[in-house]
Amino acid sequence: MPGRRAELADLPLRESLRGKSPYGAPQLDVPVRLNTNENPHAPTAALIDDVATSVRDAAAELHRYPDRDAVALRTDLASYVARRTGVPVTADNLWAANGSNEILQQVLQAFGGPGRRALGFVPSYSMHPIISAGTQTEFLDVHRRDDFSLDVDAAVAALDRLAPDVVFVTSPNNPTGHALSTEDVRRLAEATTGILVVDEAYAEFSDAPSAVTLIDEFPTRLIVSRTMSKAFAFAGGRLGYLVAAPAVVDALLLVRLPYHLSVLTQVAARAALRHADETLASVAALSAERDRVSTELARLGFHVIPSSANFVLYGRFDDAAAVWSTYLDHGVLIRDVGIDGHLRVTIGLESENDRFLEVSAQLASSLFPGRAPTTSTSSTQNGHP
Amino acid sequence: MPGRRAELADLPLRESLRGKSPYGAPQLDVPVRLNTNENPHAPTAALIDDVATSVRDAAAELHRYPDRDAVALRTDLASYVARRTGVPVTADNLWAANGSNEILQQVLQAFGGPGRRALGFVPSYSMHPIISAGTQTEFLDVHRRDDFSLDVDAAVAALDRLAPDVVFVTSPNNPTGHALSTEDVRRLAEATTGILVVDEAYAEFSDAPSAVTLIDEFPTRLIVSRTMSKAFAFAGGRLGYLVAAPAVVDALLLVRLPYHLSVLTQVAARAALRHADETLASVAALSAERDRVSTELARLGFHVIPSSANFVLYGRFDDAAAVWSTYLDHGVLIRDVGIDGHLRVTIGLESENDRFLEVSAQLASSLFPGRAPTTSTSSTQNGHP
Repeated sequence: MPGRRAELADLPLRESLRGKSPYGAPQLDVPVRLNTNENPHAPTAALIDDVATSVRDAAAELHRYPDRDAVALRTDLASYVARRTGVPVTADNLWAANGSNEILQQVLQAFGGPGRRALGFVPSYSMHPIISAGTQTEFLDVHRRDDFSLDVDAAVAALDRLAPDVVFVTSPNNPTGHALSTEDVRRLAEATTGILVVDEAYAEFSDAPSAVTLIDEFPTRLIVSRTMSKAFAFAGGRLGYLVAAPAVVDALLLVRLPYHLSVLTQVAARAALRHADETLASVAALSAERDRVSTELARLGFHVIPSSANFVLYGRFDDAAAVWSTYLDHGVLIRDVGIDGHLRVTIGLESENDRFLEVSAQLASSLFPGRAPTTSTSSTQNGHP
Repeated sequence: MPGRRAELADLPLRESLRGKSPYGAPQLDVPVRLNTNENPHAPTAALIDDVATSVRDAAAELHRYPDRDAVALRTDLASYVARRTGVPVTADNLWAANGSNEILQQVLQAFGGPGRRALGFVPSYSMHPIISAGTQTEFLDVHRRDDFSLDVDAAVAALDRLAPDVVFVTSPNNPTGHALSTEDVRRLAEATTGILVVDEAYAEFSDAPSAVTLIDEFPTRLIVSRTMSKAFAFAGGRLGYLVAAPAVVDALLLVRLPYHLSVLTQVAARAALRHADETLASVAALSAERDRVSTELARLGFHVIPSSANFVLYGRFDDAAAVWSTYLDHGVLIRDVGIDGHLRVTIGLESENDRFLEVSAQLASSLFPGRAPTTSTSSTQNGHP
């Protein structure tokens, strides 16, 4: 292997990257994978057929660059968003990229960067500070309440005081599950002098209305970012998008790498959108499973954070890392998101959740000795029944 | 359309982006498209089958995130590079991204950025300064000779004087076609104190040895970037890669967005690599066509820059933009790359080149009145017969 004698420390790496480790949850091949908030339902045969046929048709032109502006895909995304939210958005309101991470990176390239500051309400999606760092944007964090809900009064006060250039708010919040009301988002938008990014990666799992309904009210400052990775069961296809005023899309055209979206991505995502109804049918089942898992965890004695998403944060553990390892030893991969005393479990298929709950029950008997499981569900209401 | 009343100027855009226009060649639907250095040969039926079948198989797992480190693809890319260059590179020497633009962006995120400087020898690939700007890296340009060849003595002197953090050199150079010898690249690497990126997007069209042969000599400073867009006829699939010491790949893991490469991209690129021999058979034909077009343009009275790539830069024109429009009026789309008095034509299929030459002949009779076409080919030698 050429060059093997050079070490990372020998390279002229940026000072800010020295000593850092790559981001990423472990990708382990275990029986029950409940760690990255994927939709556990495999694509239907009809969807697989449509993707394969669409790719076959497109492959005849693989020697040509793709449509740089992905207009057909953006048109289809707009139809989907309009149908879901009732807001008559068009392709001009939509932008798409290789996952919402690339969307957020482009937003920060346009509106953040050196000398500018982003702000997030933590704990939240861990990529917000990482992508901020990658675009040389200073990241400020404002803490949520101890129960992980957002204190909107305190948030507004922080925005007034700090006047960040880009504000991230995640609804439902990852990894805690709490969704914001339209009025909450409106108050944040009113307090934002820069750009407010409402990260709605998990929107389909929640009954809270989308912030897309507020774009007309805040066209110069509101961006709603979304993904097909979660509800759409399209994590492997890597398709993130945003909804905003057309001027925001114009801004992103200035920073996007030309031809960033392959023709394969464009046609496969369009195929997935054609099957939205059948895919999204799994969302209701997952929400029901989330409520079942939440209830059962609480019954076992765990402290459960109410969730409007396809995952549940729960605790409390004296040593969350050790508990995470115990699950893994039993073939169940969940996520240590770095919140003291808590772990996050993604809602899987019923059988996967059963296995997770079996291991949880075993753990509960050693973690909470002498405590009989209750039948109370009072701590598991998710606020969006 | 929500938000339509907001204008770009109303947004809190970074100051450096104000007044800028999006990058990109016009994407026009005309009979003869010779403007983006695509390989004009459509994928074979066997390749299309392989891509479609591979995607169908992979689509069953579309609900899962892709392999974040794309190990299987990097292994296949390593086999290809090892076969072509004779250097025993492995997956640890390879990194892949959505087009070489994303590769270069990641390189600049790791080794450039605010307070750091990149340098290129212009005219060259226009994305080098754009991606530098996008990563807040100051870009210095050093001019090539008037004939667009690289004065290596002057280049070395500039590197000694300026000590940039990242150096770009394109071989064969786009848009001029000149390739560097191994000894030239070695001298540049010796003079580089930061990172030297040898952009070999057009390597397969040239007989010059790849700079991959020098990685073991310069493991801490040499990166060879490549793409499947050109020789591989995979522009629509968006697959760029680099070859370097493993430590360089470790560095890029710190800045890459997690899951940047979709499972579709990974399996389709692997399919394309399996058909490398049949695809690359078109390269020899294109090189022969390039020589034919160069000879004929010279015979018509144009000044032709010798090319080792799949395009030819030629002139001279008093008004290149007007000549470009004349070609377009005749259904032939070529590229105004912003070099005074010159245009660039991509080598197409024989029939496309014929059409381009027909229009060129008509133009020559008005641009060079009274000049009889010659049969001399003395000005069209490309140095790599």
